[in-house]
Amino acid sequence: MNRIAFHAEDDLVTRIARAIPCAPKTRRAISRAATRLRRGIGDDAAILSPNGKSDWVLSCDAFLENVHFLANLHPPDSVGFKSLARATSDIAAMGAAPRFFLLTLAIPSRHTGAWLDQFLKGMARAAHSLGIHLVGGDTTESSHISISVTVLGEVPRGRALLRSGAKPGDIIYVSGTLGRAALAWRWMSSNLGRNSGRKRMLRRWPQKRSLRRLLKPHLYPEIKVDLGLWLATNRMATAAMDLSDGLSTDLSRLCAASGVGARIVETSIPRASILPKLASMKEFAKLRLDPLDLALHGGEDYELLFTVPPSRAKLLRKAPGFSSIVPIGEIMSGKDIIIFDLKGRSSALPRGGWDPFRDK
Amino acid sequence: MNRIAFHAEDDLVTRIARAIPCAPKTRRAISRAATRLRRGIGDDAAILSPNGKSDWVLSCDAFLENVHFLANLHPPDSVGFKSLARATSDIAAMGAAPRFFLLTLAIPSRHTGAWLDQFLKGMARAAHSLGIHLVGGDTTESSHISISVTVLGEVPRGRALLRSGAKPGDIIYVSGTLGRAALAWRWMSSNLGRNSGRKRMLRRWPQKRSLRRLLKPHLYPEIKVDLGLWLATNRMATAAMDLSDGLSTDLSRLCAASGVGARIVETSIPRASILPKLASMKEFAKLRLDPLDLALHGGEDYELLFTVPPSRAKLLRKAPGFSSIVPIGEIMSGKDIIIFDLKGRSSALPRGGWDPFRDK
Repeated sequence: MNRIAFHAEDDLVTRIARAIPCAPKTRRAISRAATRLRRGIGDDAAILSPNGKSDWVLSCDAFLENVHFLANLHPPDSVGFKSLARATSDIAAMGAAPRFFLLTLAIPSRHTGAWLDQFLKGMARAAHSLGIHLVGGDTTESSHISISVTVLGEVPRGRALLRSGAKPGDIIYVSGTLGRAALAWRWMSSNLGRNSGRKRMLRRWPQKRSLRRLLKPHLYPEIKVDLGLWLATNRMATAAMDLSDGLSTDLSRLCAASGVGARIVETSIPRASILPKLASMKEFAKLRLDPLDLALHGGEDYELLFTVPPSRAKLLRKAPGFSSIVPIGEIMSGKDIIIFDLKGRSSALPRGGWDPFRDK
Repeated sequence: MNRIAFHAEDDLVTRIARAIPCAPKTRRAISRAATRLRRGIGDDAAILSPNGKSDWVLSCDAFLENVHFLANLHPPDSVGFKSLARATSDIAAMGAAPRFFLLTLAIPSRHTGAWLDQFLKGMARAAHSLGIHLVGGDTTESSHISISVTVLGEVPRGRALLRSGAKPGDIIYVSGTLGRAALAWRWMSSNLGRNSGRKRMLRRWPQKRSLRRLLKPHLYPEIKVDLGLWLATNRMATAAMDLSDGLSTDLSRLCAASGVGARIVETSIPRASILPKLASMKEFAKLRLDPLDLALHGGEDYELLFTVPPSRAKLLRKAPGFSSIVPIGEIMSGKDIIIFDLKGRSSALPRGGWDPFRDK
């Protein structure tokens, strides 16, 4: 039998509903949301009552075993945390407040015990920090873990941040250091299955503070919800999107949607620093990692990429997390995306979004 | 490389957006929907503008290879059609008009050619007949086909049909013949891989009208959207849900949600008839299929199960598809679900939802 029996499925739904926040609990949370939840888990579908003053933003995201994560390497609470965080990133990039989510969860029965508990714990932690509530879903048994998350967000009517509004002259910003998640993944995967001693090391990392800091951007990415909201509410950004597939790929998508080109400056791109301790490790040195390459093509940054007219750039200093917001170039007319190197030489930026499993 | 490269992924999104209706085209469709689509595919997320007069109903549903279908047996257009129809059934069961859907599609690269074209064709046909539009999604490469569909529907505020409103004395109805999908699946799977001659026969069935009629409920289920809408708009039903896991399982869920019991009459349950031609086939006879068993426990009927107070039962004759609506029993106080057989003997109805892949 390949599907979870109905009794087991009903039990599973109850377990999920208990583990993850399902309805706004505080009065503050309820009054903040213009849309009320009338009915959550337990019927055929969830019911929401929008008040007509907001727009609704909807997105879904798949997170699959052997594609986006490895069940024998990634801690289950990271799988839970990251699957929800990734899906919410698209909502944050539209400047919306994430409100509700639906979870499709297909797992092998051997994972319904401790693995599922940890998974739900991680997802609950992400839900709590993102201020988002589970309202429905579907569970089934399957040979591989397969997760799909649909997120709904709210934004004041007409204020959603699109990819398509960038104008020549606008300044291009990113919200933080790029390439950290890619660096973490390269570290993790370089040790993968080659050396059982390394495997033990991976299990130990939560104890080592420096390793924890290194791996966090890959395992527990932080989503810039507050910044997105602020940019939308204050009509600051002409275009915005989240950086999930690498700056080179995503900037070209934003430019294509806006019908513009861009020029960016290599030296201004905030990139991950490789700790001396790490750099001195033989195996790590063999990878010959280039922080700029990771920042341009690494992917999974979940930072915001956005454009602001020069006349409004000054106001940015009131933005949440302003200290890590960095201008990296400007929007140009035409279609070309140009990068200037250290010596001021320009070249076309190749679209080289990095795939975490390319070398598997 | 295990993920679809970004260029290929962008192309795939374009292909999907072209194949499946993405925005209401006619004025009638737009004015019918209280919620307008402001932005569909092509940005981080879809944007919708609700007008505050409707409630929104949301549901998601997984449809997985080797769990819900077999890639070497089920025609790809059926996989596309059924994955959307199944997900929409939950919305119809709430009495809502289905409006928009999001598609998460993970497929092996060998399926991105003809298989995907046929899949999209089937999904487009379902979308057209259900009056529903694709507004977003996520695509990725994976070793197995994994589909997750999120559907959004609209219902006049406060009118959604819940499982929880059934009262003692209410009459229990089903909207059509039960067990037909289970019968079709038993026919298909009984031939599975045992005899290559049979395999050829399976490929030939679209030409044979009697076989097409037999297999349709399993491959291309019809969703009772109009009936659900009518029941909600006219405040006819005190409780409703769709029959996806078999009458025995689903009736017990409805009763549990309403805090009531029920008694149903065996002879009144509309069941599939096994054609004499089929019944005379040796291999088929071996299965010893019992139409009542299929109707009670077969599953995948996607008919509506609903309860109506006796005082309103007369008005049901104005319902769409009234001729196939059948009363099968009544709601009782207490918790027991009792079935009366031909001879008037009563017994407890076992929850025996049938799993299409149990015997795999």
